Amino acid sequence: MKNKITLEDVDRLFPSSFTEEQLSKAKTIFFKKLAELSHKFYNGKIQIVPKVPNPGFNWFNVWYTPGVSSISTLIRDNNDESFELSNRGNMVAVVSDSTRVLGDGDVTPPGGLGVMEGKAFLMKYLGGIDAVPLCIDSKNEKGENDPDNIIKFVQMVQHSFGAINLEDISQPNCFRVLDTLRDSCDIPVWHDDAQGTACVTLAGLLNALKIVNKKIENVKIILYGAGASNTTIARLLIASGANPQNIIVFDSKGSLNKDREDIFNDKRYYRKWELCLTTNPDMVNDIEKAMIGADVLISLSKPGPNTIKQEWIKLMAEKAIVFACANPIPEIYPYAAKEAGAYIVATGRGDFPNQVNNSLGFPGILKGALMVRSKKITDEMAIAAANALAKFAYDRGIDANNIMPTMDEAEVFPIVAATVAMEAIKNGVARKILSYQQAYQWAKKDITYARELTNSMIKNDFILLPPEQMINEALEYTIGIIDK
Amino acid sequence: MKNKITLEDVDRLFPSSFTEEQLSKAKTIFFKKLAELSHKFYNGKIQIVPKVPNPGFNWFNVWYTPGVSSISTLIRDNNDESFELSNRGNMVAVVSDSTRVLGDGDVTPPGGLGVMEGKAFLMKYLGGIDAVPLCIDSKNEKGENDPDNIIKFVQMVQHSFGAINLEDISQPNCFRVLDTLRDSCDIPVWHDDAQGTACVTLAGLLNALKIVNKKIENVKIILYGAGASNTTIARLLIASGANPQNIIVFDSKGSLNKDREDIFNDKRYYRKWELCLTTNPDMVNDIEKAMIGADVLISLSKPGPNTIKQEWIKLMAEKAIVFACANPIPEIYPYAAKEAGAYIVATGRGDFPNQVNNSLGFPGILKGALMVRSKKITDEMAIAAANALAKFAYDRGIDANNIMPTMDEAEVFPIVAATVAMEAIKNGVARKILSYQQAYQWAKKDITYARELTNSMIKNDFILLPPEQMINEALEYTIGIIDK
Repeated sequence: MKNKITLEDVDRLFPSSFTEEQLSKAKTIFFKKLAELSHKFYNGKIQIVPKVPNPGFNWFNVWYTPGVSSISTLIRDNNDESFELSNRGNMVAVVSDSTRVLGDGDVTPPGGLGVMEGKAFLMKYLGGIDAVPLCIDSKNEKGENDPDNIIKFVQMVQHSFGAINLEDISQPNCFRVLDTLRDSCDIPVWHDDAQGTACVTLAGLLNALKIVNKKIENVKIILYGAGASNTTIARLLIASGANPQNIIVFDSKGSLNKDREDIFNDKRYYRKWELCLTTNPDMVNDIEKAMIGADVLISLSKPGPNTIKQEWIKLMAEKAIVFACANPIPEIYPYAAKEAGAYIVATGRGDFPNQVNNSLGFPGILKGALMVRSKKITDEMAIAAANALAKFAYDRGIDANNIMPTMDEAEVFPIVAATVAMEAIKNGVARKILSYQQAYQWAKKDITYARELTNSMIKNDFILLPPEQMINEALEYTIGIIDK
Repeated sequence: MKNKITLEDVDRLFPSSFTEEQLSKAKTIFFKKLAELSHKFYNGKIQIVPKVPNPGFNWFNVWYTPGVSSISTLIRDNNDESFELSNRGNMVAVVSDSTRVLGDGDVTPPGGLGVMEGKAFLMKYLGGIDAVPLCIDSKNEKGENDPDNIIKFVQMVQHSFGAINLEDISQPNCFRVLDTLRDSCDIPVWHDDAQGTACVTLAGLLNALKIVNKKIENVKIILYGAGASNTTIARLLIASGANPQNIIVFDSKGSLNKDREDIFNDKRYYRKWELCLTTNPDMVNDIEKAMIGADVLISLSKPGPNTIKQEWIKLMAEKAIVFACANPIPEIYPYAAKEAGAYIVATGRGDFPNQVNNSLGFPGILKGALMVRSKKITDEMAIAAANALAKFAYDRGIDANNIMPTMDEAEVFPIVAATVAMEAIKNGVARKILSYQQAYQWAKKDITYARELTNSMIKNDFILLPPEQMINEALEYTIGIIDK
């Protein structure tokens, strides 16, 4: 049975009298309200179900004691067997201390569960991966969020997983947590806010540059915000050919440059200091001055809508590219950026054109790493994924409002997975060798399984469709607020 | 399609020429080999799947950003909302440092995954609970398994779960880990090897005593082994009316009694010292002397088959009750115990009569605790569960070879769950009030869901049935070994 009111064309749900600004606001309010109602209705987004049958009582003796004893001893004698004899090889822990959750900052440890469960949902649905949300309390006796607590936690739990996905950890903790864990763990430790965002941003930028017919080597790039995302984006852009001398990075205190003693003196910000040394040779410190003639603005800063000003965008070069990717509300709404002269605008959201969202990257990247039992996810693997994403969209056609694959283009995920698996082998971090075709088929099988299983569960009433009344309620609530 | 060779009647799979002893051995070998083959075939026993539909691309905006932002802030402002707005309210972490896994001892951190996944599988299939295996490395810098590491880990991760199930942690660490966490966590921390085993053992004993027409107040009870299980069994037996003066507990160094300075001096063994003070007033220190006239022997010691000797059982009273519950191999095989005169024999295994296995208890107990959002699982709740288990079997008929419900009597689990929920309310540890009927219906719905979903997945080829050839291979392997 199909609902009469669906989310197929969200814009049309609202009165046609709404201005662009009202519509943008309305969608944010609507999705938040609908999220509240539907999360209450479903009580969460993921569940654990069997992978094995139980055809008769005696199978308990196989899946549990006494039979399972052989699994314990086989893994004890060769820990690598755990990837085959348990679900470990396809299991990812989504670990967050919930201190920087999307645009909402510190939401207390359980506060991250909605987002991390969402991540686990996407992991299965888009990547055929099993993921577990682990929102943890990282505070020490002094009440500070202590990076060492996160490091210790992940080191302890790594034996149950094929990869770790770090998520929404505030800076500066995120830098040391990631780098320490990448060095000390024997499975990939992925910080989606760093390499993940960098991968999809690079993919979007590569196609945007093709549309405006500019070369990455020549463009002037402003990075607004210098957290885990933008510092990693800078690194990947440079590795992909961007000239560091044409890059200026801003944090809340101004631009990164050699004079920034505050950064030099605080060793926890070593990733930012690297950029102080390599970018912005003219030490431009004023955002308006920096924006003059800029070809690209990539903002990963505070949620908007007024973080980025129209006046700044007016200063940019012809055919300016603006990525305003803060969540849940972009630093400037797309209509406003375009009004100010931007030619291509991307955001992190799926309800505007050009969604540059991690969800396009991590499912395929982690699946690729898991399949070849990679020890790490190198920058080269993230860049290979970005190129695969860009190429997929380019091959099926791109334009200024369509630079990226979308999340419902299911075919892109196994391609990314196989590409990443091959790059892992090339980089010498894979423990298992597969051909591109083998990796592609495997990923495709698991992703198809996840989607078909979900459909089958809906068909057989194990998952109910959202009641139409719930959508109506969210809609009425939203219109009531906007109309005030 | 049904396999021709099934596990319906395992005994008949083997040559009729096998002696009882050969058959007992053969079944252990067979289940272990079949476990190896089938775990390799299925690559694990659980997976994560959606609980929500994705009817169109725009629902990503509800389940993830921007909509999910409201879930973060709602939970931030009231942490209790996490039980409703995420799957937390039905999620259990199965935490082990894999240092005492069933009968196999320390199997290294990932070595516990087979057992903990089995537990998660049973949690869903029998209790309608979602559970995640977390096998952790508890070693400190000195290379010792450090209870403080386990305590810290659980305290950090508790915010993602509705309950914690501790499992297979070696002693003495298990005592302090459990007691510290029960005091410091705001969700139930359950040590299945302690209260879980105690609950099902008490249930079995209550019915066994009915069959032999003896009263718990009067019987002489020998507990062989003084780990987490037997020390907790002693506590629950005494709370249920057993006379501590009629109880003698043995560990590897002799009986527990007031002269045991080694236990007195090592504060980590405080649970054992309590029993040194209350039991065994005559300070009997010889197992053969202790067994004279004993009515009940409960052994939770080293795996057998020769840990308990036939000579000891011959010394027991009329209609002796013997629980030989080591896994994977009982301390004495049932046929041998019966040969020596035991009237009722129980083991931890499902392929012998009278399985006294935790799997009968924890699914219903944890489900009951989760439903009323209990802060703890009290001894009273475990005893209430034991009485419900015993009553269920008694009401449908018991005999010397059938003292317990079996794992395929699905109806028992919601009864246990509702009973435990009511006891939690009575004990003042519940945060949510339900009626017995409400709790019963809720548990029944979730358990039915888990079973019907599994069946639907089998029917629709999302779970394949085990290939017949796999059972054959395990069978041939087993017969080859026994025939040698």
